[in-house]
Amino acid sequence: MPAKFDNLRVVLVATRNPLNLGAAARAMSNFGFLRLRVVNPYEVAFREARSAVGASELLARAEEYKEVGAAVSDCSLVVGTTAVRSRDVRHPLRSLKQGARLIHKDLRSNRIALLFGSEKVGLSNQALSHCNWLMHIPTREVHPSMNLGQAVAVCLYELARDSRSFPEPAEPQLAASDDVERVTSVLLEALRTSGYHHPRSATITDTKVRRLVRRLRLQAPDAEVWLGMLRQIIWKLHSGK
Amino acid sequence: MPAKFDNLRVVLVATRNPLNLGAAARAMSNFGFLRLRVVNPYEVAFREARSAVGASELLARAEEYKEVGAAVSDCSLVVGTTAVRSRDVRHPLRSLKQGARLIHKDLRSNRIALLFGSEKVGLSNQALSHCNWLMHIPTREVHPSMNLGQAVAVCLYELARDSRSFPEPAEPQLAASDDVERVTSVLLEALRTSGYHHPRSATITDTKVRRLVRRLRLQAPDAEVWLGMLRQIIWKLHSGK
Repeated sequence: MPAKFDNLRVVLVATRNPLNLGAAARAMSNFGFLRLRVVNPYEVAFREARSAVGASELLARAEEYKEVGAAVSDCSLVVGTTAVRSRDVRHPLRSLKQGARLIHKDLRSNRIALLFGSEKVGLSNQALSHCNWLMHIPTREVHPSMNLGQAVAVCLYELARDSRSFPEPAEPQLAASDDVERVTSVLLEALRTSGYHHPRSATITDTKVRRLVRRLRLQAPDAEVWLGMLRQIIWKLHSGK
Repeated sequence: MPAKFDNLRVVLVATRNPLNLGAAARAMSNFGFLRLRVVNPYEVAFREARSAVGASELLARAEEYKEVGAAVSDCSLVVGTTAVRSRDVRHPLRSLKQGARLIHKDLRSNRIALLFGSEKVGLSNQALSHCNWLMHIPTREVHPSMNLGQAVAVCLYELARDSRSFPEPAEPQLAASDDVERVTSVLLEALRTSGYHHPRSATITDTKVRRLVRRLRLQAPDAEVWLGMLRQIIWKLHSGK
């Protein structure tokens, strides 16, 4: 993970449901953000989540606070999450995509808190007053409110999205032109042997088949397989004569 | 929602946990993908998820299948999701970001199935054999496996991410230069009145303070508030003499 991920504090405020605490911790571990803070969680929920099967080290190392102010006191940027799109004119509101870009700019040299409120009511006005700005996940207007664990997962996915530590898998290697041409000629031979006739001339058939095969985006190892299959068919066609 | 979202079928294969079924349905509704298919779900789970509080219309309208083949028979592209990065050389593997781009290209004119396997074992080889290619969410190698409901949420977030139907909120309107300059001069007056002296000359102080204020990115409505506060301070400074 990039070292800067270590500068993010995920702060869960007044979480009620142990499953959500566990799910948030799991998403953090998936995406490489390992610093959890909890503010005033429903006590039973916190205990259950900690003792739950699969609850990670991360949850065991979570720091507990009584107040939002204390939980963010060492952070130079505090970002609140909200399902509501125009909750509060006093806070700039950014989409997750916009917000993640800003967080990234600061994350290298600053400690940043990302706040998630309780399942029922989100962040209180008191919690919001500690925030520099708010971020929302774009959702349908008729159903904006996300499950807490899912919201945490989506936010952290976006934050990790363009990280170089997750290299893109290579696109499959396509067959080279000469392999494609070999498949084409064997296919043409099979068509000729099987008596396939294009309504017009043989030349047009050749051209059409050549284009047809090129539209397949044949992968390199597959070209050999196709050659083998077609040759077998040709052999059978001949032997059946 | 873009009409093309209606071409996506989210296909949950052999899901065991009703909470995951419910969470998947909720994320679908959040992001505007409303067509759910379930293949061979654990029966009790499906019944419980359907009857659960908050289970949406979407879950009630889910189509049920016995076999993956039947569930994807009307889809021209079938994409499987996997936590494993190099499961199977027979299938091209793409990151969610790459994969979502390809899905988008096809979604306008084709019906596409996005498959999620069971919580324990993911998609079986039999299910995988119906897939054109596989997609994975980039996660830490030491903890690649995501919760099912969270994986669905993250995939659908990425698919909806660049949709025009979620306009970006406007950035806050910044104060115009003349407002910033007014704040600057009132601040300078307050500093002079309070006897603040820069070690060097007054001109350097003026320039430094001007730059200082411009680094604030003062928002338009806030400029007025700052002016009011500073004027009050100046008034108090003078009246206290």
